[in-house]
Amino acid sequence: MLGSTHGTLTTDSRRARVIACGEQPSPVVHGRPADVGDLDVSGRPLYADVPDLDRFFRPESVAVVGASDAEGRPGTGITRQLLAWAERVGARLHPVHPTRQSVFGIPCSPSLADLPEQVDLAVLLVSDPLPLIEELGAAKVKFAVVFASGFAETGEEGSAAQARLAAAMERAGTRLLGPNTNLNAFERFRDDLDGPAIALITQSGHQGRPVFALQELGVRLSHWAPTGNEADLETADFISYFAEQPDIGAIACYIEGLKDGRSFLLAADRAARNGVPVVAVKVGRTETGARTAASHTGKLTGADDVVDAAMRQYGVIRVDGLDELQDTAALLARARTPRADGVVVYSISGGTGAHVADLATEAGLRLPVLSEAKQAELHQWIPDYLNVANPVDNGGHPVGDWRGRKIIDAILDDPEVGVLICPITGPFPPLSDKLVQDLVDAAEHTDKLVCVVWGSPVGTEAAYRDTLLGSSRVATFRTVANCLTAVRAHLDHQRFVRGYRSPFDEAPRTPSPSFRKAQALMRRGQQLSEHAAKQLLRAYGIRVPREQLVTSAAAAVRAAGLVGYPVVMKASGAQIAHKTELGLVKIGLTSASQVRDAYRELTDIARYEGIKLDGVLVCQMVEQGVEMVVGVSHDRLFGPTVTVGLGGVLVEVLRDTAVRVPPFGEEQARAMLSELRGRALLAGVRGRPPADLDALVEVVLRVERMALELGDEIAELDINPLMVLPRGQGAVALDALVVCR
Amino acid sequence: MLGSTHGTLTTDSRRARVIACGEQPSPVVHGRPADVGDLDVSGRPLYADVPDLDRFFRPESVAVVGASDAEGRPGTGITRQLLAWAERVGARLHPVHPTRQSVFGIPCSPSLADLPEQVDLAVLLVSDPLPLIEELGAAKVKFAVVFASGFAETGEEGSAAQARLAAAMERAGTRLLGPNTNLNAFERFRDDLDGPAIALITQSGHQGRPVFALQELGVRLSHWAPTGNEADLETADFISYFAEQPDIGAIACYIEGLKDGRSFLLAADRAARNGVPVVAVKVGRTETGARTAASHTGKLTGADDVVDAAMRQYGVIRVDGLDELQDTAALLARARTPRADGVVVYSISGGTGAHVADLATEAGLRLPVLSEAKQAELHQWIPDYLNVANPVDNGGHPVGDWRGRKIIDAILDDPEVGVLICPITGPFPPLSDKLVQDLVDAAEHTDKLVCVVWGSPVGTEAAYRDTLLGSSRVATFRTVANCLTAVRAHLDHQRFVRGYRSPFDEAPRTPSPSFRKAQALMRRGQQLSEHAAKQLLRAYGIRVPREQLVTSAAAAVRAAGLVGYPVVMKASGAQIAHKTELGLVKIGLTSASQVRDAYRELTDIARYEGIKLDGVLVCQMVEQGVEMVVGVSHDRLFGPTVTVGLGGVLVEVLRDTAVRVPPFGEEQARAMLSELRGRALLAGVRGRPPADLDALVEVVLRVERMALELGDEIAELDINPLMVLPRGQGAVALDALVVCR
Repeated sequence: MLGSTHGTLTTDSRRARVIACGEQPSPVVHGRPADVGDLDVSGRPLYADVPDLDRFFRPESVAVVGASDAEGRPGTGITRQLLAWAERVGARLHPVHPTRQSVFGIPCSPSLADLPEQVDLAVLLVSDPLPLIEELGAAKVKFAVVFASGFAETGEEGSAAQARLAAAMERAGTRLLGPNTNLNAFERFRDDLDGPAIALITQSGHQGRPVFALQELGVRLSHWAPTGNEADLETADFISYFAEQPDIGAIACYIEGLKDGRSFLLAADRAARNGVPVVAVKVGRTETGARTAASHTGKLTGADDVVDAAMRQYGVIRVDGLDELQDTAALLARARTPRADGVVVYSISGGTGAHVADLATEAGLRLPVLSEAKQAELHQWIPDYLNVANPVDNGGHPVGDWRGRKIIDAILDDPEVGVLICPITGPFPPLSDKLVQDLVDAAEHTDKLVCVVWGSPVGTEAAYRDTLLGSSRVATFRTVANCLTAVRAHLDHQRFVRGYRSPFDEAPRTPSPSFRKAQALMRRGQQLSEHAAKQLLRAYGIRVPREQLVTSAAAAVRAAGLVGYPVVMKASGAQIAHKTELGLVKIGLTSASQVRDAYRELTDIARYEGIKLDGVLVCQMVEQGVEMVVGVSHDRLFGPTVTVGLGGVLVEVLRDTAVRVPPFGEEQARAMLSELRGRALLAGVRGRPPADLDALVEVVLRVERMALELGDEIAELDINPLMVLPRGQGAVALDALVVCR
Repeated sequence: MLGSTHGTLTTDSRRARVIACGEQPSPVVHGRPADVGDLDVSGRPLYADVPDLDRFFRPESVAVVGASDAEGRPGTGITRQLLAWAERVGARLHPVHPTRQSVFGIPCSPSLADLPEQVDLAVLLVSDPLPLIEELGAAKVKFAVVFASGFAETGEEGSAAQARLAAAMERAGTRLLGPNTNLNAFERFRDDLDGPAIALITQSGHQGRPVFALQELGVRLSHWAPTGNEADLETADFISYFAEQPDIGAIACYIEGLKDGRSFLLAADRAARNGVPVVAVKVGRTETGARTAASHTGKLTGADDVVDAAMRQYGVIRVDGLDELQDTAALLARARTPRADGVVVYSISGGTGAHVADLATEAGLRLPVLSEAKQAELHQWIPDYLNVANPVDNGGHPVGDWRGRKIIDAILDDPEVGVLICPITGPFPPLSDKLVQDLVDAAEHTDKLVCVVWGSPVGTEAAYRDTLLGSSRVATFRTVANCLTAVRAHLDHQRFVRGYRSPFDEAPRTPSPSFRKAQALMRRGQQLSEHAAKQLLRAYGIRVPREQLVTSAAAAVRAAGLVGYPVVMKASGAQIAHKTELGLVKIGLTSASQVRDAYRELTDIARYEGIKLDGVLVCQMVEQGVEMVVGVSHDRLFGPTVTVGLGGVLVEVLRDTAVRVPPFGEEQARAMLSELRGRALLAGVRGRPPADLDALVEVVLRVERMALELGDEIAELDINPLMVLPRGQGAVALDALVVCR
């Protein structure tokens, strides 16, 4: 889920090395913590400005506009729920209604202007909130919630109305939740549960229900933010705010689309800095899902592989099902920092142990073989013919007496062990009740993670409902798969947080000298010629072959002499696509006469095809290396992205690429390479020399810099192929395509 | 899960085409149904001899050897359970004990020889059953169950004891369940549930518990076979038997290892012929799992990709978790044949609909957009601004009144729709109780599949426990993922069964003329020379380049003239590995002098390296095509297997291969190609011509024939590369490696 490769070089040493290798050095940018108002070189913010939502969740006073106590009116139930909620959180509630004297016995104000005090929060139950916004501003209301629907989720007209609403709220200086939201923020949260809580953010009330219901299983929930259409306050704001609350252990999100990619990343960055895990379902794995989700809340979904990568960069744990969201968030909220990543599977059945160990290994967990000494210790209580190496099979009987607890404690006492997973496939009270009690007791006396999978599909057994769910120290699951997903996420997240350095602190804030050179080459709306594209690469210190642009056969021969035989010759001009297919590339030319002939042939073809050339490139021929592609694309949600992949024909077929959203550092560039299925090619196969990985990483980081400085002016940039030479010899961009926006 | 590609040619037309294309035709084998005792050309059975287990599961009389009623004795509880079971199934129970007069008031026989009648089943509770086996035979006992452990699961000594036990049982003529088994076959099954049942087969009692517990959720279970160490009766026997029982709707298996690959395939074939789905957890995804499972029941796990492929060939649905086993088996047992494969997601929430539609599409289900007419019909009851194209979002309110049922009926009435999935994320009784009741009622009046996902993690709600679980017509799930897995398995399995033709009916029973030629070339325990390996391929009608084996430079020049320039020259000899790396291959030779030089160089290198040559091959040079690999390996569970993959350096890195267990037909050969990630290469990319797919399929089938006829004599066969030429031009084996066993 999370990138597991973290580079060993610090960012500073990377910057230094970039300069050492580069022909055209970019300026050194020493990281300093980003702060409010800081922008990176692309003009994007480097810091999430977190709204203070204390007064939203715990207001001292609340106005309810459109409050009602008339039976049968839709506002009545809502008013009743708000009253109960206000009482619980200790807020004074003021009904607002133009004609009523009182609602549920509370005196009514005819308008917001007539409120007896300044309120923190106004809940607008009216169908058209727009006329009220100015009054909100005049009354200095901090927050407003708008339930009305019919905005961006209905199409263009609704989007325009939503924009008007947002603009009016901004003028009024009141922060808005909604429109098209609901009562979820004002639900009744159980206050009798202990341990760190889950905070929930959803773009659909129904989709939050299962996580909310976790409270009935003993898992604490502290907040629920139903963000609706996010005309103002968005998912990111709540993530940032929740990441600062000391009693929140994990943030669970159901996301259909994001209002803004950058604000989401900044929020995720804040959570990562604070070590607070964010677990998210994000709809949009398929076109069907993306389309349907967009029609539901009117937000963008973004390319799914980019969403995946962006989440991974900031340690956001993406899951697919609401059941995984529940189970993963519940575990991550309550688990302590693991002292070891070793997992032991402990079971009363050899079969169950074998099965779960198989799945756990498949899930990427590490199941250490217990030491001889530990096995001998366990065999004091477990018969010798049973396997206790890991999985530990106790055969059943020892569970029924004093030995049961001894075994668990001995396993948890092993310094290699951070997690104990005990699958129980069915209730057999004489054994399972005792086993469950021992696990719950042992969990109270350790800071290691104790997980139980209660495999019975029935789920009404006392051992499950009372003993297991009664403990906040044991993580209880109904399926092995969800247990393994959650444990993996926990260990990965802890590893991620330990190694995390915010890329926003180290993002360039001012343009490099390269930028000015580059700008002179850009042609708005046009595809650059290969020659110009390569000049752009050179401006950013990316090596291209020795080459000359010539406009006569004689000049071509002279150029070939300078470049050195054999040479490659290519027609160069703006707007040329499919050069190879059109015969506009000649390779392996070894003599002056071949060069002259090639010049004539290339210009003839161009004339015949009606292609305007700026000349013919005479290039050094570079053969020995691994062909890669490196490029910049534009994601509608996250803006410019950087892609790296294997080149050549096979990869066109296999689409073996990795993507990242800038800014990112060297460790992410290296992680991209480790994601490639064909990465072994770079290490050298069939006796080929290993490729110059460092040079490849260099190029990725230089392209990232281009993406940051020029990204919004580039529709598409493709270095294809980038020939990565044997180790120590660098990498050369043999061809490049640049399309300006 | 199941292969979705089924060829359009019938097997007979395939055979005909093989002859048309082949230089060395294999004989035509017309399929005839396989029967008891039939063997294929490899000597393996073509027919599963199904034991009649009626008298095992429903015996008229049972002997319990070692029965006890003394408090505190381990046999007492077992005897009590057997008594209760015998009473339920109407069997007469006879305790056997050397000294007791009676057990629980039933007169005891001192030995099996003294039983008052011939018994169908003897349950042996003794720790050493071996001395009793002869008596079993003398008493003509049909079946015996041996609970004792300490056999193959304990290692070599135990395996030997198990072999003695099995041999004794065979001599006695009594079929054995066990050893190392338990009481699961004699559990109390609920007889008040209706609908087709699940039959359960497990190699671990604990691992069967969750499926057994499905009865508490209203799913009928008819049998449980705990096969233990399978010294005699094995998983396959029970699959075959259950596949013949009219009231069994699905067979659920938990498998750690298989006693014999072929018997499993024959059993799966029988189930496929009868259209009875087999759903199986098979441990062994990882080495950890394989090792641990082997130590649990002492059986082989086999290479996991081969297990996967073999199961897919015979329509066995492999799942990983016991929860998936429960949910998939329960749905497949009870679902009727679908009339359409269109799936509609129906929800009271746009968010839920979008999310589930996304996951369903990702899972490979087809979500048709409902027709304009159907949408108009639905909009009679659902507000216009809601999406009813699929997913269908009713917005909530219509569920609460008479419209709720109308909507469901209208969806189910659509001829495109075979499955309705309704996710309910949380209980809101005014709506969800009514929705659930409508779904249950509607399901009673349709033969389409109605699935409900009850997303609340609580699971004690009345709508769930009473209404949903009370219906055998609605398939109820707790997670969307398991619902989608089960629905996909159901639709795939139905498609599979419709297209299924048993490969055993069409497997060759007698050797082809190729076989005799081939046998003369085999050298036991040796690697053949390239020349001999290619002769073997030619014997089976696989094209090799024009080539000659020569032993002098002059002969090489003559051969090159005959073969045609340019030529490739290679050293040929037994035991040569890494030809290319050693410099023993020369390509692109265009003149007599180059050929002479190459001959000298190759023989010099061979002499220097101390490699014995049988000569030098002068071969036609074949360049334009897609490089593939086709080979035969030996799996310890399934015997010879056939592999096909993409060739070349990239694929060495990506391991993009597909495998099958012979016998199989053309449709499976084509399905193998469709499993390759790089399959688009065969279709032609970047202006390359499409490759001759038919010729590639031919080669795969000819290699399959080699695997069948020679497989047990071949340790390894690799055609690498097989150059697949442009369409219509065939495929040529450029190099081959054959190692004899």
